Amino acid sequence: MATASIKMRLHRIIFGTEPGAGRNFDILLIVIILSSVGALFVDSVENIHQKYGDFLFAAEVFFTILFTLEYAARIYCSPDRRAYIFSFYGIVDLLATIPTYLSIFLPGAQHLLVIRIFRVLRVFRVFKLFNYMSEANVLIRSLISSRRKISVFLISVLTLIVVFGALMYLIEGPKSGFTSLPRSMYWAIVTVTTVGYGDIAPRTPLGQLVAAMAMITSYAIIAIPTGILSAELIQESQRAITNRQCDNCKKFGHEKESKYCRHCGEKLSPPS
Amino acid sequence: MATASIKMRLHRIIFGTEPGAGRNFDILLIVIILSSVGALFVDSVENIHQKYGDFLFAAEVFFTILFTLEYAARIYCSPDRRAYIFSFYGIVDLLATIPTYLSIFLPGAQHLLVIRIFRVLRVFRVFKLFNYMSEANVLIRSLISSRRKISVFLISVLTLIVVFGALMYLIEGPKSGFTSLPRSMYWAIVTVTTVGYGDIAPRTPLGQLVAAMAMITSYAIIAIPTGILSAELIQESQRAITNRQCDNCKKFGHEKESKYCRHCGEKLSPPS
Amino acid sequence: MATASIKMRLHRIIFGTEPGAGRNFDILLIVIILSSVGALFVDSVENIHQKYGDFLFAAEVFFTILFTLEYAARIYCSPDRRAYIFSFYGIVDLLATIPTYLSIFLPGAQHLLVIRIFRVLRVFRVFKLFNYMSEANVLIRSLISSRRKISVFLISVLTLIVVFGALMYLIEGPKSGFTSLPRSMYWAIVTVTTVGYGDIAPRTPLGQLVAAMAMITSYAIIAIPTGILSAELIQESQRAITNRQCDNCKKFGHEKESKYCRHCGEKLSPPS
Amino acid sequence: MATASIKMRLHRIIFGTEPGAGRNFDILLIVIILSSVGALFVDSVENIHQKYGDFLFAAEVFFTILFTLEYAARIYCSPDRRAYIFSFYGIVDLLATIPTYLSIFLPGAQHLLVIRIFRVLRVFRVFKLFNYMSEANVLIRSLISSRRKISVFLISVLTLIVVFGALMYLIEGPKSGFTSLPRSMYWAIVTVTTVGYGDIAPRTPLGQLVAAMAMITSYAIIAIPTGILSAELIQESQRAITNRQCDNCKKFGHEKESKYCRHCGEKLSPPS
Repeated sequence: MATASIKMRLHRIIFGTEPGAGRNFDILLIVIILSSVGALFVDSVENIHQKYGDFLFAAEVFFTILFTLEYAARIYCSPDRRAYIFSFYGIVDLLATIPTYLSIFLPGAQHLLVIRIFRVLRVFRVFKLFNYMSEANVLIRSLISSRRKISVFLISVLTLIVVFGALMYLIEGPKSGFTSLPRSMYWAIVTVTTVGYGDIAPRTPLGQLVAAMAMITSYAIIAIPTGILSAELIQESQRAITNRQCDNCKKFGHEKESKYCRHCGEKLSPPS
Repeated sequence: MATASIKMRLHRIIFGTEPGAGRNFDILLIVIILSSVGALFVDSVENIHQKYGDFLFAAEVFFTILFTLEYAARIYCSPDRRAYIFSFYGIVDLLATIPTYLSIFLPGAQHLLVIRIFRVLRVFRVFKLFNYMSEANVLIRSLISSRRKISVFLISVLTLIVVFGALMYLIEGPKSGFTSLPRSMYWAIVTVTTVGYGDIAPRTPLGQLVAAMAMITSYAIIAIPTGILSAELIQESQRAITNRQCDNCKKFGHEKESKYCRHCGEKLSPPS
Repeated sequence: MATASIKMRLHRIIFGTEPGAGRNFDILLIVIILSSVGALFVDSVENIHQKYGDFLFAAEVFFTILFTLEYAARIYCSPDRRAYIFSFYGIVDLLATIPTYLSIFLPGAQHLLVIRIFRVLRVFRVFKLFNYMSEANVLIRSLISSRRKISVFLISVLTLIVVFGALMYLIEGPKSGFTSLPRSMYWAIVTVTTVGYGDIAPRTPLGQLVAAMAMITSYAIIAIPTGILSAELIQESQRAITNRQCDNCKKFGHEKESKYCRHCGEKLSPPS
Repeated sequence: MATASIKMRLHRIIFGTEPGAGRNFDILLIVIILSSVGALFVDSVENIHQKYGDFLFAAEVFFTILFTLEYAARIYCSPDRRAYIFSFYGIVDLLATIPTYLSIFLPGAQHLLVIRIFRVLRVFRVFKLFNYMSEANVLIRSLISSRRKISVFLISVLTLIVVFGALMYLIEGPKSGFTSLPRSMYWAIVTVTTVGYGDIAPRTPLGQLVAAMAMITSYAIIAIPTGILSAELIQESQRAITNRQCDNCKKFGHEKESKYCRHCGEKLSPPS
């Protein structure tokens, strides 16, 4: 019994439904994650690595042990361990620890160390901490319900990129840096997204004319995803004005003047 | 009779109204198109061309034969052959085959080979496959009904580009790369669309001041097409809601995903 | 009497309220304007100027004579000549002719020739031709009614530019190209508007950090003018659904369910 | 009594609620602020500094004395002096004067002089002058009420930047300028915000592929904050309309510029 209750307590703290200790645990965890990512950052600078490399390695080992303990605790107190281990966060939590161990035992695995930076993905738990979930859900829901429109847009843009890239490969050729079709596509993406590094740029008048047309087109086109998402978010926010729930099918999102559930047809209780 | 029925069957499969075989045909076709475009891509890289050029040429001939057969089949089973041949897709389908034959018989026609990349336009058939047509239509309809506003916007932007380009040609001159009016226009387009390669950039203080003004102006202006399209798409989606009527209580204004009337609880007929 | 009627006829044709001849006159005028601007364009290219300079000069003289005749005709048939001469189009029409005459009599006035490019502003008359006036008016009205919000936005952005520019001048200094405060401001404008030429770029780690902060800020801020204009255009389009006019104060823009004019309080006639 | 009334008068003029003298004071102040900032600007240009440095220094001393007097007057006439001194504007007002005095007494404090540029923040008082406060408030309110959605967006973008930056550090390495993780992050920010200086750019095909993916992602993502703010501003403007009530027929939903009720024709009280 004692073990079960400890396990449950631990679960409440770590997976964070308890106000006091659970919140403190989450804050502490985010501080540690950001510290370990910060250590990775500064360690990648050559000068700092030469001076403080040993200290930063010690810190790294310390952080890794903490993450390992946390990972073990999460597995221990999960009601469904398998589900946790193979969940997105389960894999990210594991990836936060493995590279350091590998780099100790396999000296050639230096490059694997950068994988540790994916620890930063653990920070998304911050949304739970600050009750950002509903806002995140609104954004995700808007993206999902406009996914088809966005797909149509992206396929069109990609086609445009292929067409303009191929044209420029024909017109400019290797002399201006358009050495192959993939490189021309890279140029087209850099241009259409208005990033514009300038590492590859048209030099012939005809090439500049076609490039100008690509820019004007992309300038008009960038309005489309914004329009899609604006329309979606406006609908979403109008829909969400009342958080009214249907007593029958438990679905949310009923307007103030609705009398019947639009999902199951059951009578709704009056709005609060 | 048998011939006629085979022809109709073929038409249903190729032009895709049959669920089973038609869908499989479409998926296979898109895989082949993307493979052939991918082969074009990698073949344009010098290293790969030298190593695998022969293999890729063989693949190319194979793909071309497939496309030729498909083109013949499409002509064969079309009820109105003339209409198909001169339609947009008819021409694209033909362009997918011709360049390879030309390059075999005319050795100098190497450059024509890039035309094959327009095969990628055939991928738009994917919209039909994933039932994206209604979404594509919403976007196209929004663009069409705001075409006049967008024309006004584009004419204004082009005028701005001409004015700023001419000013910079006056101020900066050939020393900073503004060697002619067309090149100054190219600079103005690169700047106003916020691409900003940096291949031509103002060097004199006065030129930098005018360029800064052009940037601030374009920064404020980029909001206009987005605003136009947002307003259009919002109206479009509200219109779709507004026009859905309940068969029982005759009230309008039901959302796309609603199944039951929110006024009387009656089942709604599915949205058109 | 005959003179007066010719004058009125000419006025209807040139200022364009007559369907047949007026429309033809407008189309011809736009073709001539675009031809003369095109001639200016190609003449500014060194190679073309050396080969076809004489022919293009002859064309230029021809266009200028046409514009002079047109300008004279416009003055002749205007009911209020003074008003036309000092109007925006009156000045643009005059500027379309003067530089050529000056360049003939003053050989040093080569640079003035570029002023001729402002002829392109005459093309705005095209809006009248294609009945784009109502769309242009919607856009202009939206810009006017959101001018205060946009002013607030622009003042904030300019302050941000000054602050970030000054910070970078302090941090980077002349070594990285931040040689003076105006140049730093130029850099800040190039960065905040996301143009990003790369002619001046931060080199020190601290400078790159501050520049990154400026970019993230501007990335979040660019949404503001778009939001302002979207909201405005949506309101505008909702308002303009009925072109209902008040019989008393003659103002437009009354909603379908309005019974009284919101400007003067007079009863409205029912919507058509 | 005389002192008290002078103090109150002064307070009305300086803190600007009096129409005549108060408005003149504000305009004069803004002219002086902009002149002093302008002097700073031109003085930072080497050539101008060598020629007119002495004159500009004299002007600077003059401006500083004016600002000192103004600062003293503001403290003198504030009802709650402590509150003013430690307010945002109190600190900015103080920072407008100190650097000049320091540079006179401490010859090495040249760099502090740039701090004077923060005088530009005093210009925000212009909002009060032109009655821009309500527009500024709408924008600020929209930003505040969408701060949670924008936080979610920014955290997601920052995570994306970290992930793409780390990937590029792995793929490209020091040879292409990705010398450390912080520098890779700098590259990622420059790319995702579509600034695109081109001082660091991918050179390997794999690096260009990943960079292209980052660009396409950011292209789709830039729509999110715009959508958020558009939705917010539209709601804001609809709310303002919805909350305006007619005193006569008690109906809501009157637009800002409406003077008469559109339901009963009665005069409306002005919008709050």
